Amino acid sequence: MIKLNDINEKIIQAEYAVRGSIVDRAQELERQGRSIIYCNIGNPHTFKQKPLTYVREVLSLLEFPNLLEKQAITNLFHSDSIARAKYIYNQMPGGVGAYTPSAGIGFIREAVAEFIAMRDKIPALPDRILLTDGASKAAQAVIQLLIKSPSYGIMVPVPQYPLYSATLTLLDAKKIDYYLDEANGWQLDLDELEESLAKAKANGITPVAITVINPGNPTGAVLTRENIEMVIDFASRHKLAILADEVYQNNIYGSKSFYSFAKVMHELKVEDVSLFSIYSMSKGYFGECGHRSGYLEVRNIDDEVFAQFVKLQSINLCANTVGQLATYLMVTPPKLGEASYDLYAREKDQILQNLKEKSRVIGDELNKIPGISVSYPEGAMYAFVKLDLPVPAKVDIIPEDEKYCLALLEETGICVVPGSGFGQYPGTLHFRTTFLPPLEEIINLVSRLKKFHIAYQNLG
Amino acid sequence: MIKLNDINEKIIQAEYAVRGSIVDRAQELERQGRSIIYCNIGNPHTFKQKPLTYVREVLSLLEFPNLLEKQAITNLFHSDSIARAKYIYNQMPGGVGAYTPSAGIGFIREAVAEFIAMRDKIPALPDRILLTDGASKAAQAVIQLLIKSPSYGIMVPVPQYPLYSATLTLLDAKKIDYYLDEANGWQLDLDELEESLAKAKANGITPVAITVINPGNPTGAVLTRENIEMVIDFASRHKLAILADEVYQNNIYGSKSFYSFAKVMHELKVEDVSLFSIYSMSKGYFGECGHRSGYLEVRNIDDEVFAQFVKLQSINLCANTVGQLATYLMVTPPKLGEASYDLYAREKDQILQNLKEKSRVIGDELNKIPGISVSYPEGAMYAFVKLDLPVPAKVDIIPEDEKYCLALLEETGICVVPGSGFGQYPGTLHFRTTFLPPLEEIINLVSRLKKFHIAYQNLG
Repeated sequence: MIKLNDINEKIIQAEYAVRGSIVDRAQELERQGRSIIYCNIGNPHTFKQKPLTYVREVLSLLEFPNLLEKQAITNLFHSDSIARAKYIYNQMPGGVGAYTPSAGIGFIREAVAEFIAMRDKIPALPDRILLTDGASKAAQAVIQLLIKSPSYGIMVPVPQYPLYSATLTLLDAKKIDYYLDEANGWQLDLDELEESLAKAKANGITPVAITVINPGNPTGAVLTRENIEMVIDFASRHKLAILADEVYQNNIYGSKSFYSFAKVMHELKVEDVSLFSIYSMSKGYFGECGHRSGYLEVRNIDDEVFAQFVKLQSINLCANTVGQLATYLMVTPPKLGEASYDLYAREKDQILQNLKEKSRVIGDELNKIPGISVSYPEGAMYAFVKLDLPVPAKVDIIPEDEKYCLALLEETGICVVPGSGFGQYPGTLHFRTTFLPPLEEIINLVSRLKKFHIAYQNLG
Repeated sequence: MIKLNDINEKIIQAEYAVRGSIVDRAQELERQGRSIIYCNIGNPHTFKQKPLTYVREVLSLLEFPNLLEKQAITNLFHSDSIARAKYIYNQMPGGVGAYTPSAGIGFIREAVAEFIAMRDKIPALPDRILLTDGASKAAQAVIQLLIKSPSYGIMVPVPQYPLYSATLTLLDAKKIDYYLDEANGWQLDLDELEESLAKAKANGITPVAITVINPGNPTGAVLTRENIEMVIDFASRHKLAILADEVYQNNIYGSKSFYSFAKVMHELKVEDVSLFSIYSMSKGYFGECGHRSGYLEVRNIDDEVFAQFVKLQSINLCANTVGQLATYLMVTPPKLGEASYDLYAREKDQILQNLKEKSRVIGDELNKIPGISVSYPEGAMYAFVKLDLPVPAKVDIIPEDEKYCLALLEETGICVVPGSGFGQYPGTLHFRTTFLPPLEEIINLVSRLKKFHIAYQNLG
């Protein structure tokens, strides 16, 4: 019988705090009848963020294409949804029940390339697009491809989304930490990058890529164009590939615009840096996490290397078809004049407006709590909140921020993720919270947190 | 810029012939206007195998739950589909757009356990079920868990479905080949298992598990109960886990019944062998490959080991929700008396009857071709066809069976997979064909193959 000490130690070592022990405890409390506010995960639909009607109408018709023959559907679905479903169905022999080509359905890869070209006003190629089961799978494929030996390493921000650390651990590869500059709104800092890279090399690590998350998870920061240019120049000078996690690209609340690495790199005419960009329908105004939709776009890479991505995907056959179709609908919204256009625009604006309002409340109100500070969230769905608490010189088995988050959960029912789950500058303490709950719940959350924090400080 | 020699060599080495170079060539010919019969992959819906109406009605309603409020749907959907969709929707806060728990949706794990208990008349536990993106992901997770170091190995049949060889290559683990007994209808042979294991150990390999595919892919064989008992006893004596790939369990055409490893192991009261069984909705009368639905059931394993599976899954968040729901519908068909019952039964019987007829034609007709022989397909969707051709003593870069399959494709438009993609006994030559095309096309295929084979023999 297989025991814990028989199995792959890398799996035991891998950590993914977003679904870690504090969440387990929250679920336990919930089963005991406690009311929990889950601010641990970016899962918008559980907080009544509604799916876009257009998207779901088309997917519903494609699940049951017999409907397309029925007159009665004209009263239940918008005319452009019906037309779109028919158009798609005619291009999918076998429908959603059939395996697709390994790299994804052809017309969807074309539509994704057109979307990138339109978004960034740059050329984009369908045969450099890979459709995946969520952006996570895309990121994992890139890392798996780039890690040739255990001495290879990838630069990862601190704090980071723990997909990156967990995947590097599973692959027995080196994680090269670089700190984001909290004092400068979590931008990347060139000196820090150079220092981190030099240290890794001195330790015998071969750095092959740098991961950048923009807009930031867990930081909620949006990188300036200058910051992106700096990273591209850094990557070019040090012959690093770039893994750009851009899944929050349409969660933007402040004055900064989103610039894709693809756009900036193209405009800088940099052709020696391999770029891997990921995007998905899980976030933004879609929030379609459950559909596991995602894509990878690759630039500055040979055909034969891209073919290896496709082969890797072929071992799993293909990404789920409904997720692929969701990606298609993400990149081809209804056009002006089509029946769904107004509703789509209204639903989209309402969701983004609501998120913007909540980001403002989180930014304003948390900073009013003595001993708590936070960079104003400019993007994504998160705030990475700094706690002004004494950090003991000797580190306990349970990190200080985890103790805090556990106490917060037990006292208030608020479930957040300790900063140590993402990494943080030594001597600092944080937690990540989403701002997805309804506004009134967020206001309530802030007031409960304030009361808790003051009491916790006095205890310590 | 990343070049081929910069990347993970394990990816370059991994091979997945089901979507390999012959398929690429077939697609090239198709683009040039040639008509191709794709017999390379078990993708039923591309051959007009229809999805079950009940399944698609429920999934369609769940994609667009607004429909559940509308009176007009009673004319478009069966009443039990509507009731089922409402029942499911009420248990899914956030609907199909939300992440689920990492191990899968709770009520679906319960339903899977009940299904196993009913199928096998044995106890089954929901908290030993993991819902996955297709059975492939489940198999990969098991292998990843079991491989602790590169000296660890897993026994894999020859011929095998190349998911296993590819995954072991990617994980830098050892594949321990054991030959299936073609002369005995592709059953497992005890002497061969003992010999293969002893040889592996002598080579410094630590064997940890044996993979069994039943019904067989590519063999089309169904294992007898005695054969399964023998394997369990072998695993118990040698302290091996069993990975039972049972995805074709309801593709049964001959007189043999399907016995699950779980059932036989339970009835033998074997409690020291860890068992990992996988199943999916991609095959059988469902054929829902595109939905990437699947589950893993684990037996004789500690809580803390199962928790590592769940953590591994959590790094990818969760399996796609529509696939999870498809699994739910697979294990809970309409009941006698419900509105969809008759249609469901009719659709199911028709598909299975049709596959049975085609397995008979393939078995009967191929054996009539001089120089070709095949074990009568008893299950799955495949025949592994033996070619009586001279094998040169010196192996060419392109294996003989690949030359044959390529010539077959160029001459006749029939796309099959060379035996070397699955492995075969040295000195033998095979190809795998599905019997999914419509009956008249299969009859046509056999006659074209006959003509081709006779000409090919005369050439050689």
